[in-house]
Amino acid sequence: MDTHTTLQLLLDAHRLKRTPRTGWVMRGVPDGESVADHSYGVAFIALLLAEMVTQAVDRAKLLTIALLHDLPESVVGDLPTPAMAHFPPGAKRSAEAAVLTELLDGLPNAKRWHAWWREFEEGTSVEGQLVRDADRLDMLIQAHVYEKTTGNRWLAEFWPPDGESPFSSSAAQALYEELQAIRQRLA
Amino acid sequence: MDTHTTLQLLLDAHRLKRTPRTGWVMRGVPDGESVADHSYGVAFIALLLAEMVTQAVDRAKLLTIALLHDLPESVVGDLPTPAMAHFPPGAKRSAEAAVLTELLDGLPNAKRWHAWWREFEEGTSVEGQLVRDADRLDMLIQAHVYEKTTGNRWLAEFWPPDGESPFSSSAAQALYEELQAIRQRLA
Amino acid sequence: MDTHTTLQLLLDAHRLKRTPRTGWVMRGVPDGESVADHSYGVAFIALLLAEMVTQAVDRAKLLTIALLHDLPESVVGDLPTPAMAHFPPGAKRSAEAAVLTELLDGLPNAKRWHAWWREFEEGTSVEGQLVRDADRLDMLIQAHVYEKTTGNRWLAEFWPPDGESPFSSSAAQALYEELQAIRQRLA
Amino acid sequence: MDTHTTLQLLLDAHRLKRTPRTGWVMRGVPDGESVADHSYGVAFIALLLAEMVTQAVDRAKLLTIALLHDLPESVVGDLPTPAMAHFPPGAKRSAEAAVLTELLDGLPNAKRWHAWWREFEEGTSVEGQLVRDADRLDMLIQAHVYEKTTGNRWLAEFWPPDGESPFSSSAAQALYEELQAIRQRLA
Amino acid sequence: MDTHTTLQLLLDAHRLKRTPRTGWVMRGVPDGESVADHSYGVAFIALLLAEMVTQAVDRAKLLTIALLHDLPESVVGDLPTPAMAHFPPGAKRSAEAAVLTELLDGLPNAKRWHAWWREFEEGTSVEGQLVRDADRLDMLIQAHVYEKTTGNRWLAEFWPPDGESPFSSSAAQALYEELQAIRQRLA
Amino acid sequence: MDTHTTLQLLLDAHRLKRTPRTGWVMRGVPDGESVADHSYGVAFIALLLAEMVTQAVDRAKLLTIALLHDLPESVVGDLPTPAMAHFPPGAKRSAEAAVLTELLDGLPNAKRWHAWWREFEEGTSVEGQLVRDADRLDMLIQAHVYEKTTGNRWLAEFWPPDGESPFSSSAAQALYEELQAIRQRLA
Repeated sequence: MDTHTTLQLLLDAHRLKRTPRTGWVMRGVPDGESVADHSYGVAFIALLLAEMVTQAVDRAKLLTIALLHDLPESVVGDLPTPAMAHFPPGAKRSAEAAVLTELLDGLPNAKRWHAWWREFEEGTSVEGQLVRDADRLDMLIQAHVYEKTTGNRWLAEFWPPDGESPFSSSAAQALYEELQAIRQRLA
Repeated sequence: MDTHTTLQLLLDAHRLKRTPRTGWVMRGVPDGESVADHSYGVAFIALLLAEMVTQAVDRAKLLTIALLHDLPESVVGDLPTPAMAHFPPGAKRSAEAAVLTELLDGLPNAKRWHAWWREFEEGTSVEGQLVRDADRLDMLIQAHVYEKTTGNRWLAEFWPPDGESPFSSSAAQALYEELQAIRQRLA
Repeated sequence: MDTHTTLQLLLDAHRLKRTPRTGWVMRGVPDGESVADHSYGVAFIALLLAEMVTQAVDRAKLLTIALLHDLPESVVGDLPTPAMAHFPPGAKRSAEAAVLTELLDGLPNAKRWHAWWREFEEGTSVEGQLVRDADRLDMLIQAHVYEKTTGNRWLAEFWPPDGESPFSSSAAQALYEELQAIRQRLA
Repeated sequence: MDTHTTLQLLLDAHRLKRTPRTGWVMRGVPDGESVADHSYGVAFIALLLAEMVTQAVDRAKLLTIALLHDLPESVVGDLPTPAMAHFPPGAKRSAEAAVLTELLDGLPNAKRWHAWWREFEEGTSVEGQLVRDADRLDMLIQAHVYEKTTGNRWLAEFWPPDGESPFSSSAAQALYEELQAIRQRLA
Repeated sequence: MDTHTTLQLLLDAHRLKRTPRTGWVMRGVPDGESVADHSYGVAFIALLLAEMVTQAVDRAKLLTIALLHDLPESVVGDLPTPAMAHFPPGAKRSAEAAVLTELLDGLPNAKRWHAWWREFEEGTSVEGQLVRDADRLDMLIQAHVYEKTTGNRWLAEFWPPDGESPFSSSAAQALYEELQAIRQRLA
Repeated sequence: MDTHTTLQLLLDAHRLKRTPRTGWVMRGVPDGESVADHSYGVAFIALLLAEMVTQAVDRAKLLTIALLHDLPESVVGDLPTPAMAHFPPGAKRSAEAAVLTELLDGLPNAKRWHAWWREFEEGTSVEGQLVRDADRLDMLIQAHVYEKTTGNRWLAEFWPPDGESPFSSSAAQALYEELQAIRQRLA
């Protein structure tokens, strides 16, 4: 990838700083986080999950996945979840995969990174699974923060039903239970 | 449509007040307009265009189309233009049509309004064409306002190339030329 | 009205997109809606009310009134309600009427539209009354949304006292009662 | 004035922190200053002007006037200048005077402070004149800052025509000329 | 101080309008007040406290202190309270004193104003103590307003423990108790 | 580190999402980026720099440093550069080091991560140097974006003087030159 193309990729990725997370916007959260904010949160959580799990984790791969996992949103935006029911099955994943291919085109590791991104989408490696857990956990921490700081009453639907766990790792599950404890205490 | 369902429709449409127009967001405009802001602008411009054209215009139909034309975005959001190249052809229109069907379900005029919305999408009636013109003109007035008030240099691509007219009606074309004159004068 | 004057009117009306609704601002709602947001809501509600009532409604007139009803605020702003007690009786209405005359000056339908606006102000036609109902209902839906999304405790005064109805039409009254039911359920 | 009434006055004055200055809002300045921001600027400038002038200045009176000069806007808001042409002559001043009377009612110095406020409105004392100068100068400094930080092209009308001075004191005039020099240098 | 330097001081002080109060920002308050907003509140409260106390108060001195008390934050910003534990004891006060010296350098009253500012920091004069009381009271009024308007649950720590008074004057204490009464009533 | 402490660390780090970057705030950029936004940018740039350089780079270490490099700002905030001249030499670094020790306390890799953070602060490893380059480059890309999107004229001082390079790696230098080319073209 030549310098010109690399800088274009940086400018594209930079757009995540001004891409709002749609879920909060639609529920009336003022000044909500950006996709870059969220991606930072995911990467940081993944870094800590890797310290907590007993499996071997390739940290370079783990953090690369975390940084790439929402990169396609710099082009397609953060499509609202209710919209999905009205697009052909798989249309979002295909669009994001195509965007990722274009964005990474020319990078030495393009193929590898694209494969890693699919492992995240499909949860087919320990690193992909940990980033999925971090993705979910960052969303719930953010929901908690908005509940406490803005009094928003429309965020309950983000929380998993009692007794259900959306996490692969027991580390993420334990952090989630601790979060629920704090959340209830201040309810 | 019973009262409960009608109120749900109002609450859905209300979401347009907090749905940002993506084109401005991606180009770094702070505190950009909402889809409801834009829809008001479109309806108001359409009202004036109807005064300027020589054809017969059904104003009730015209304004209804203006109010409905972005209603599906209350569910699917304002999908960024660059995203479109990566979705199957027609996926956006199909999704919006399906959403509109769901939103209007049970209203006495649902079928008629849906047909009108298609006339807008396809430009197949004078009212549909005037709302298309108003849609384009409101976007350009907004681009002009952002250029003058925020100094944003990334909005040039919204403007049609010299000598090209994106408008059906000579009324909209005349207003556009006047806008260009003002825009140049203060450049 | 020549093209130049018409574009000036569009630019004036466009200012409603950046005119905040004062009632929310004074009560600490962050990033509150614009007058254009509100006007869109009023027009959309009026469109649905017309479907619900049994009287004959001139929809072109109805929607024109909805689009015009706050147009003078593009010049005088949204004067806070508590300010009114300190201005001479009728000063606000006179100022707004004078502004409207200036804004519409030269339009073929200026006189008719001005008369319609008075029907809204005075509630002297079915269309004027329905827009009044829509105006009130949009404000209450917005108050509800702010109560649920920002936790604001200072919006109670917007709600009519128990047993009082601020609406002319039973359609608006029914929607209001449904709104109250939702509001209480999540209280 | 009893404690309860005094606290109400503090809560009323506090509202100036969330009362936007309308002139900037109407010209598309995002996140513009509040009336409290402006009042702080005026008081601080007045404090320095008092150091620069040769006349005797009662600083307690000067700063009290600065803190009170926009207090009525906590109730009537910041009425846009173009609105004034459409209200009866003197209506704004009368409304603000009436509001001030109500706000200060019960304070030991109410009469004196009200008289001082009139000296500001009418420019009939050295302290009143210096606050007028500070009021104008703070507005121009703010216009300068918005021109440089937001690229807004619509603020030129705030600046006095070449060769005209809106200031009573030569101290304010000198600061203004210095400001113009900085403004031109970076144009 | 020559005109050029004085204008620089005004431009520096002007920065307080865009310096956010860190305590609110860290607790997720959207669009929180500026240091200039706060300084206006402090000056206004101090003005009223002077009316309520029985001691002799030099109002010119009192209001000057209020206007100067956070002026150094235009350079060093509003350092978060938790940061203080990690800086050498007195580092913040020394930095702010040095900044104040630089900012006021050349003003006829520089030394006197600096001495007054120390009286505020150390609470060693009646005027310094009243501004301290006003500083605290404005923060608590603001916390109350944010609790009521944003539903923020993280502001409890700003309130003094039951039975403890952070105020020097009984006037401020009485206003605080009245504020607590209002706060509880709407809890 | 037990689950409770780990969650506290996540909540602390989460605060970076609402910690504004002070340099932009002081220069009047509205809605500027957060420290988390910036940290995401730094990590992403570092990931690409590692692809461009010929040296061996430990990517897990590199990305961990990027995620940690501004973590102490979650407690001490983003201290403005002009403030530094007024604090004892080294006070900021000491405070941040102490905060980092507290934040990481109990983590298995605490010591290693702390050592890595020092390598960043002091530029004493290839990974530390690349994050320094990424830190600088992300700031300049952001300055470029704000110049183009807000018309801000006060950001010139962020750019290095002609002929001076603030970068260690030729990869970062090449990207910087490309950025300058784009910046000039649209000037």
